[in-house]
Amino acid sequence: MIINGKNYRTVWMKSNVIYTIEQRLLPHEFKIVGLKTAKEAADAIKDMMIRGAPAIGAMGAYGLAQAISNQKETNREKFIENIKKIKKMLWETRPTAYDLTHGLNFVFDRIKNQSYINNIKKIAAAAAEEYADRSAEACKKIGIFGNNIIKNNSNILTHCNAGALATVDYGTALAPIRLAYYNKKNIHVFVSETRPRNQGAKLTAWELAQENIPHSIIADSAAGYFMAKKEIDLVITGADRIAANGDAANKIGTYGKSVLAKENGIPFYIAAPFSTIDPNTKTGNEIPIEERSQEEINYISIISNNKLMKIRMTPKESTARNPAFDVTPAKYITGIITEKGIIKPNELRNLL
Amino acid sequence: MIINGKNYRTVWMKSNVIYTIEQRLLPHEFKIVGLKTAKEAADAIKDMMIRGAPAIGAMGAYGLAQAISNQKETNREKFIENIKKIKKMLWETRPTAYDLTHGLNFVFDRIKNQSYINNIKKIAAAAAEEYADRSAEACKKIGIFGNNIIKNNSNILTHCNAGALATVDYGTALAPIRLAYYNKKNIHVFVSETRPRNQGAKLTAWELAQENIPHSIIADSAAGYFMAKKEIDLVITGADRIAANGDAANKIGTYGKSVLAKENGIPFYIAAPFSTIDPNTKTGNEIPIEERSQEEINYISIISNNKLMKIRMTPKESTARNPAFDVTPAKYITGIITEKGIIKPNELRNLL
Repeated sequence: MIINGKNYRTVWMKSNVIYTIEQRLLPHEFKIVGLKTAKEAADAIKDMMIRGAPAIGAMGAYGLAQAISNQKETNREKFIENIKKIKKMLWETRPTAYDLTHGLNFVFDRIKNQSYINNIKKIAAAAAEEYADRSAEACKKIGIFGNNIIKNNSNILTHCNAGALATVDYGTALAPIRLAYYNKKNIHVFVSETRPRNQGAKLTAWELAQENIPHSIIADSAAGYFMAKKEIDLVITGADRIAANGDAANKIGTYGKSVLAKENGIPFYIAAPFSTIDPNTKTGNEIPIEERSQEEINYISIISNNKLMKIRMTPKESTARNPAFDVTPAKYITGIITEKGIIKPNELRNLL
Repeated sequence: MIINGKNYRTVWMKSNVIYTIEQRLLPHEFKIVGLKTAKEAADAIKDMMIRGAPAIGAMGAYGLAQAISNQKETNREKFIENIKKIKKMLWETRPTAYDLTHGLNFVFDRIKNQSYINNIKKIAAAAAEEYADRSAEACKKIGIFGNNIIKNNSNILTHCNAGALATVDYGTALAPIRLAYYNKKNIHVFVSETRPRNQGAKLTAWELAQENIPHSIIADSAAGYFMAKKEIDLVITGADRIAANGDAANKIGTYGKSVLAKENGIPFYIAAPFSTIDPNTKTGNEIPIEERSQEEINYISIISNNKLMKIRMTPKESTARNPAFDVTPAKYITGIITEKGIIKPNELRNLL
């Protein structure tokens, strides 16, 4: 993605330091952070400095490769044991995203049968790099396939941030939007705010603004209004995990938008690489849904005088519930835009 | 309603000063404001110091009565002309709420054929008082009828604030909840945050907290998740205007919740006094929908060091769309809880 005229990925590694964009400061400040340990990588995921399933997958891959490189143990068996523990720590940061499992296993599977520690270190670093490259390439292809379903003069609704910032590059839901815009189609994007963390209003709007793609931010609750008014032609969101039957877990609120789209006869697409599809999860009921801290509802995070502050928005006696994801049943999904083409949810099982 | 152990109405008049709660400071500060002119009353409505259709109706009635009392003109015809202008100014503050029309006409119709200015002044003040009393009484009855549909051990979802703060007293959607709680039913309320102005998180939660009614604040987008999980048994919201065919305009997001309720087999009720029903509006398509300033989306209002501050949350290049209401078609509404009982939307036309 282009930021201030320069090309960036969301996460990359150089000289064994992982670099990523501090997403919690956006849209107000653009800052690159260097992570030097697996603990720092895990915290970056857990505390949502980086978020989005494919981006988390790459962070997991880099985090594990970095930990392997930093590992001082010389006994191979103990070495692998230590790495397994670090892998588990990285894996436990976010329970819903399947890409994280995929990224960690991609690196671990390459090294687990290797005998020599020096080889292990080199192979792990190369595997993480390959994982990130493949991930970026998959998103680019999602954009190329997805562009085909975007007609000229379209109004497209997206939810949360499934943009370049949520992936290694290009984005998932935003990749078709980018490609349509590059192909000179006249488009306008409705960006739903995405409470409680406002990833739509903060991140998606920022990415679109960087490339001058026309957009309007709306309250999450306003999607139905614009659908009923026929002001939305198409919905595209990302996914955090897709089950074998086509059910898709994504940011809280996706399910509601899919039901409203169906009710209003509007096509509803999920854009996701195959790495988001978990053949071992039979249906959406099996996807664990992370319930995050009620502080995200009770407090608003603002940046004032360059400081991140949390301000209580609700009565001090009130409690909150904060599920971070919901499951959109396959029956509400028109198609899944993947790097291998657009597939219907019910075709998924045959392809896996 | 009980606040800090004392009984309050949301709006009242004493010695020709209108008093109301400065709702924009809640839940952090409880402050009573005195309004001395029709312009101040109009601004209180327009700037949302007071909001909620029945409360606005009473503010309109009091505002007009106050203006009539303050009017120095001695020529009866000119007097009425001046009052008509003030009535128009008050009416133009919020286009969606039908109660405002009702409150203004209630006072104006009582005086318009009166010959003597002294009589006019007295009658207007008494009419405003009667309007407020009737409004409070209607809400109490809504609570009594609505209590009948709340089973023990219910989880009830409400949206926005249709509480005592949105009415003269008791509330509309919150009246049945209050009555169920007073009747010792075990209930829990899901309070949807209600972006962009957070009336759920700020006002409804505050009202419920004042009376220790168990509740959890959720993001607007999370309603579908809890419905699909069967954690919500019943939805009750208010309405800003109900058309003759039963379509109901209410806070943005109500429509989406009604569609999700239907999809999940959950009863969806509107609680509103008859004053909210407009027999002259045939269907929801005729209800004007107010689109408010995009600043409400782009900025967050916080209270820091006892000062109301606005902080930009979105990229400075981004624009927003901000419809304040949507229309829930009658087909999604299980029943309308009124002061005359619970009626089906399709029975409405016969009753009018």
